[in-house]
Amino acid sequence: MNKSRDTQYHKLVKKLISTERTELLKSVFEPLKPVEIANILLQLKLQHQLVVLENLERETSSEVLNNLQDSPSILGDIVKQLSPDRLSDAITDMPQDDAADFVGLLDDEDASALLERLPEKDREELTYLLQYDEESAGGLMTPYVVAIRKDQTVAAAVKEIQKFIKKEGLELFYTAYVVDEYDHLIGTIGTTELLLAERNTLIENLMNHEVVAVDQDLDQEEVARIAKEYDLVVVPVIDKHLRLIGRVTLDDLVDVIVEEHNEDLGHIAGTGDEEVTETSVLRASGDRLPWLLVGLFGGFLTAIVMSFYENALVSLPDVTYFIPLVAALGGSIGIQSSSIVVRGLATGAIQTTDMLVRLWKELRVAFLNGIICSFILAGMSWYLTHDLGRAFTSGISLLIVVCFAATVGSTIPIILKRMNIDPALATGPFITTTSDIIGIAIYLGFAFNVSFSSLLSS
Amino acid sequence: MNKSRDTQYHKLVKKLISTERTELLKSVFEPLKPVEIANILLQLKLQHQLVVLENLERETSSEVLNNLQDSPSILGDIVKQLSPDRLSDAITDMPQDDAADFVGLLDDEDASALLERLPEKDREELTYLLQYDEESAGGLMTPYVVAIRKDQTVAAAVKEIQKFIKKEGLELFYTAYVVDEYDHLIGTIGTTELLLAERNTLIENLMNHEVVAVDQDLDQEEVARIAKEYDLVVVPVIDKHLRLIGRVTLDDLVDVIVEEHNEDLGHIAGTGDEEVTETSVLRASGDRLPWLLVGLFGGFLTAIVMSFYENALVSLPDVTYFIPLVAALGGSIGIQSSSIVVRGLATGAIQTTDMLVRLWKELRVAFLNGIICSFILAGMSWYLTHDLGRAFTSGISLLIVVCFAATVGSTIPIILKRMNIDPALATGPFITTTSDIIGIAIYLGFAFNVSFSSLLSS
Repeated sequence: MNKSRDTQYHKLVKKLISTERTELLKSVFEPLKPVEIANILLQLKLQHQLVVLENLERETSSEVLNNLQDSPSILGDIVKQLSPDRLSDAITDMPQDDAADFVGLLDDEDASALLERLPEKDREELTYLLQYDEESAGGLMTPYVVAIRKDQTVAAAVKEIQKFIKKEGLELFYTAYVVDEYDHLIGTIGTTELLLAERNTLIENLMNHEVVAVDQDLDQEEVARIAKEYDLVVVPVIDKHLRLIGRVTLDDLVDVIVEEHNEDLGHIAGTGDEEVTETSVLRASGDRLPWLLVGLFGGFLTAIVMSFYENALVSLPDVTYFIPLVAALGGSIGIQSSSIVVRGLATGAIQTTDMLVRLWKELRVAFLNGIICSFILAGMSWYLTHDLGRAFTSGISLLIVVCFAATVGSTIPIILKRMNIDPALATGPFITTTSDIIGIAIYLGFAFNVSFSSLLSS
Repeated sequence: MNKSRDTQYHKLVKKLISTERTELLKSVFEPLKPVEIANILLQLKLQHQLVVLENLERETSSEVLNNLQDSPSILGDIVKQLSPDRLSDAITDMPQDDAADFVGLLDDEDASALLERLPEKDREELTYLLQYDEESAGGLMTPYVVAIRKDQTVAAAVKEIQKFIKKEGLELFYTAYVVDEYDHLIGTIGTTELLLAERNTLIENLMNHEVVAVDQDLDQEEVARIAKEYDLVVVPVIDKHLRLIGRVTLDDLVDVIVEEHNEDLGHIAGTGDEEVTETSVLRASGDRLPWLLVGLFGGFLTAIVMSFYENALVSLPDVTYFIPLVAALGGSIGIQSSSIVVRGLATGAIQTTDMLVRLWKELRVAFLNGIICSFILAGMSWYLTHDLGRAFTSGISLLIVVCFAATVGSTIPIILKRMNIDPALATGPFITTTSDIIGIAIYLGFAFNVSFSSLLSS
């Protein structure tokens, strides 16, 4: 839709900035939505980004800044260059939950300086939201929520909503929450239902008693899982006393889901926290280097293992031919098992108590595929060496490696999860490295010992 | 929340079924929501799943079946065992868009037999929805949508909505769409706004003119991207004549996002379409085998490359020590580059026209990390062989391999995308295999040629 447009625009914008035609620049951005402007900014250099932001209306520029939150490193660079006034304006313009996230991106010192500059009401509300962990339901929620008492009539409820909206400003909402006299959340009522109901019906008789709510401290990933499971568009948030304190909307949860997705891919692909929009080569290298060092270290251990077999390798060089194959297959099987287990742990389909059940399943799957691969490897080995005994030993050793890799791949994520470490860490370089080292050790040990004995007996 | 409950329940259910205490079984499921029952079913065997479904209320069991759509292979097994009556009941109970997906899961023959059994109205509506590609906006939408004419008053619009809901049954909706006299979509109006407006205001004066809609044939992934970008909770769908024909709700899009996430992970981890909830070992093996065969084939080619160097390997066995390291690092760098590019292509942050820009960035990132890794490798090599010349050549050859891997990793996904092949295919085994083969060829070629020349000159 607007993909190719972004590309055209960012070239045009560069030209307009370098030739200082700011009036034309303004008119180019005039018809665009903030999210579209934000997408164009992602393609520009910092100094150009700042020129664009200066030339936008105050409200538009605040919304653009808000939309840049998906690319925190780019936003961070921009924020460092903005005047304190511009920043506090932006914060005031944003919805509270976004403003809290925005302030959360700043250094502690900058953040408190910024809070000082805000009007008292905004400061108080933000301070209230900032007390929650950014990745919890509390950190994600907006505290503006319409609570209707169960003993009100529809007409009174509508008046309440009107009053609320007049005071807090109109923000779209779809569900009103019903509370008892102690502010306990006891039901929900859709605005559509309110719209269609008789004016003097009691809310109590209209409301939906089934209500799914989340605790303020629940992790955002869990909140997203619950919203998906129950098909909720808005999730109410309650405190420890079961009192309604806010709501999380599904569009914020979609951001959470996408964020977690990128985090998973970052773990499995070894790119860490790197953002797709990252333009700094230095920062991208830094995010990726740790994963490479893991592989490097593993490679060094593998080299040491191989050096133990120096004499054997010289007398039977063709055993080495299949080392990359054994390493690759062991790694693949390990990653297959671990990624299924990690996904299952994330969705709740696999429990940490299921380790043996899961291990047994993964072992059977790996064994089945291992048998097929081992036969093929034996065939290849025979083709290259014309030595049936050695073909047989390579096949068997591959099967052992494969079963070992499945064991590692299916148990390590569960063990990590039990230790409260993110199990997704075990899907990428860690699993491949482990199965490389031990897989090659198994392969060499097995191949040489059995080959030798068959050589001796012949 | 309900994770540990699921585990407890499925053991209890097994026991109740095997002891045939169906009354108790019913009362266990009574207080649960359909999605919770579906989660428990996932842990059971087929025959137990069928017993549970038989003992649920008709409506609950239909909703449970609907909730199982996330695990199509399990649902497929169940559906084959259900009576035609039970199936047509289930279809009739489901919302239209879900019913269409459900029918889409069946074989063509079963599907048309099922459609024959439905009441005419349902059949027509389903046939209408089934014409769309299941993965397009049309396939995802529900055709029930409230369209209000711009020249109506609020009171008339509310009456229209009431009539609509009486006819079609209440389904929560949050936004009404405003159309002109030709059914062209021209604006939106939230139900909250309608609720709060003066009864005799004209819709025209109240509606929001900015409206984001998607074409009926747009891919579901794109629809999700647009909903995320514009923070939409409902996305209206239009036909080729810009007429409003339906709406897609964000909760369906969340399913799309999660589905695409799993597809991406399946590609990168080499598990293909396998579901986390897959219980059949044979099916899981089948989903994973193709990716292993790619690795096996690559390993065979690598073995052939290595066999060309047989004599050299015998005289310098320690060169082989670092083959796994070179293969692992080449693979890691290739996957890092390709996964960033694939993600960027998916979000629109990277265009297919950006190939050279992207290649240049990835090369610089890989070069920077490659320099560091090469120095470390040279150090390791010196430590193991005490040969400075060979340490130097291993370092240089690793740097070449790394740059090669970055080139492959950053260009192949873009080329695939240009050829309309899913670029995510290039994130897993294909990239590692390619960089294994060519990386090892480069390493061996370089190491031996340069080592030999230095040996000759000394």
